[in-house]
Amino acid sequence: MRLHSHRRVAALVFPLLLVAAAQAAPVTNSSASQTAIHNVLDAQVAAWNRGDVASFMQGYKDSSATTFVGKTVQHGYATILGRYRTIYSGKEKMGELAFTDLEITPLDSRFATVTGHFHLTRNAAAGGDAQGLFSLVFEKTSSGWKIILDHTS
Amino acid sequence: MRLHSHRRVAALVFPLLLVAAAQAAPVTNSSASQTAIHNVLDAQVAAWNRGDVASFMQGYKDSSATTFVGKTVQHGYATILGRYRTIYSGKEKMGELAFTDLEITPLDSRFATVTGHFHLTRNAAAGGDAQGLFSLVFEKTSSGWKIILDHTS
Repeated sequence: MRLHSHRRVAALVFPLLLVAAAQAAPVTNSSASQTAIHNVLDAQVAAWNRGDVASFMQGYKDSSATTFVGKTVQHGYATILGRYRTIYSGKEKMGELAFTDLEITPLDSRFATVTGHFHLTRNAAAGGDAQGLFSLVFEKTSSGWKIILDHTS
Repeated sequence: MRLHSHRRVAALVFPLLLVAAAQAAPVTNSSASQTAIHNVLDAQVAAWNRGDVASFMQGYKDSSATTFVGKTVQHGYATILGRYRTIYSGKEKMGELAFTDLEITPLDSRFATVTGHFHLTRNAAAGGDAQGLFSLVFEKTSSGWKIILDHTS
């Protein structure tokens, strides 16, 4: 009777688990994407804070179409790298970067958006603290998730 | 002999045309998406310039996830509508809107990004002219292409 009862419960529970697993699958993928993108951003912050602009730039897709919107709209990996090298020439001017309020939203398996807040802790001689908001579009490329559009304000 | 020659040419040309058609297809779709998105933006400008915020908002996806990044990050269609109604209360404050330098980039069949410049012509009493840059993420929904992320600075 107990065995029979267990079987009845199993007959009820197992299909429910399958349904739950099927429904959870996109969430799991989405969560994996979110983790992967979070890791890219963490790596950018770490690179920035050791004064390594070249490694920071690994977060962007190496493409002429990659776009940075700041005071103007700029296109191309080399142009964006050049902008960082010009504005943040040296470790003092780069300061200490932190990202907060990150919201990572997968759109589908290949694209995602991120919004967040950046804060730069910097001594007065280097320009003082700076902060603002950013929105990013990420693409899952053959070499991982990469930023294809960065709007920082 | 002439017929034979034509047949040989046809045998060469037809497969090339098929290849050309296959390669052109994504461009055609991409162009159709660009036109559709351009129409949404044109409709937004027209709605704005007749003081019709509700119609302007039709360019956004009616979702709690729709995001506007301005001075802060705001979520939800109703919140974004409320922001417009508060800041641009009445036709004088709305002024005359124009979008320029539009770059519409389809990501895949369902998503696209847009960057552009906005200019608001307005009399001094209403706050004077205003201008800035925006980046948008569009989603192709069942009711057409809609903005899901707007970053304006």
